[in-house]
Amino acid sequence: MAESGRIPQARALLQQCLHARLQVRPAEEDAESQWVEVTSAPPLPVPRAGVQRGLVIYVCFFKGANKELLPKMVNTLLNVKLSETENGKHVSILDLPGNVLIIPQATLGGRVKGRNMQYHSNSGKEEGLELYSQFVTLCEKELAANSKCAEAGVVVEHGTYGNRQVLQLDTNGPYTHLIEF
Amino acid sequence: MAESGRIPQARALLQQCLHARLQVRPAEEDAESQWVEVTSAPPLPVPRAGVQRGLVIYVCFFKGANKELLPKMVNTLLNVKLSETENGKHVSILDLPGNVLIIPQATLGGRVKGRNMQYHSNSGKEEGLELYSQFVTLCEKELAANSKCAEAGVVVEHGTYGNRQVLQLDTNGPYTHLIEF
Repeated sequence: MAESGRIPQARALLQQCLHARLQVRPAEEDAESQWVEVTSAPPLPVPRAGVQRGLVIYVCFFKGANKELLPKMVNTLLNVKLSETENGKHVSILDLPGNVLIIPQATLGGRVKGRNMQYHSNSGKEEGLELYSQFVTLCEKELAANSKCAEAGVVVEHGTYGNRQVLQLDTNGPYTHLIEF
Repeated sequence: MAESGRIPQARALLQQCLHARLQVRPAEEDAESQWVEVTSAPPLPVPRAGVQRGLVIYVCFFKGANKELLPKMVNTLLNVKLSETENGKHVSILDLPGNVLIIPQATLGGRVKGRNMQYHSNSGKEEGLELYSQFVTLCEKELAANSKCAEAGVVVEHGTYGNRQVLQLDTNGPYTHLIEF
């Protein structure tokens, strides 16, 4: 984790969900909007009890971030015990096991200046896209390599870098955590 | 805002919503669960276009936070230009004007230690409750004192400190921002 006082290379925000739905392509004249979802249940509205739990990871990279950071970052985020079992115990998302939804969220890098936000510390677009893509790939590999996850058939879904992240989130308590690297 | 390197007194996380619904009392044997909502539209499911926009503020206080912090904090959060108008311009939630949902979220103060989170920097429960209550009251006063908000009839809703925050969130992009004080 980023030590106190050091400028972080990346910021991740974690929220627990019962169901999440993210638009990955807006509606166009000749096509409906496209969405990815993390739940085994049918789309909302549904009875909200007992559906598969998941982890939403919002991620933002700062200037100076490099890909050497990514394995440690993925390892921490997928292994930290923040996911609640049906018995109320907290385990990692790999141990739950549950689905993962990754959302690029450059706004997380903003700093207040007067009444506006500035994003001077954020990584450049190309660099950010590259880091984000590799981050997603690494998460996918980790889930695929985990026998519990593979057996349960849990998946990694993710948003498209640089686009608006139209999100619907249904939680049993978001249990929001911030982790910097 | 908290300067780089200084330990913050408070952490706020902002997300924009089209509709948000927060459980403020779980269901009991003889009573249905109670919810607060920030939208003018009927409960989910509804057509998701054109509903009133709102701001979700997750808030966490650290050890050393005191009530002198609160006016500046409320002023910043309600005046920072993060709320999108129908024309895609960003204005403050006071200028939108839009509803505000405040969610106590002590988990935001966590730090990773191995595979667990620790919350050693968080304010004590009594102190945190007092700060949270005053924070909510100040937000209510600011909205009430703002003529645009008063005319539009926008409201402050909030979760109950110390309880599970069962949240349903519907966004057109959460546009997540972190602001420390």
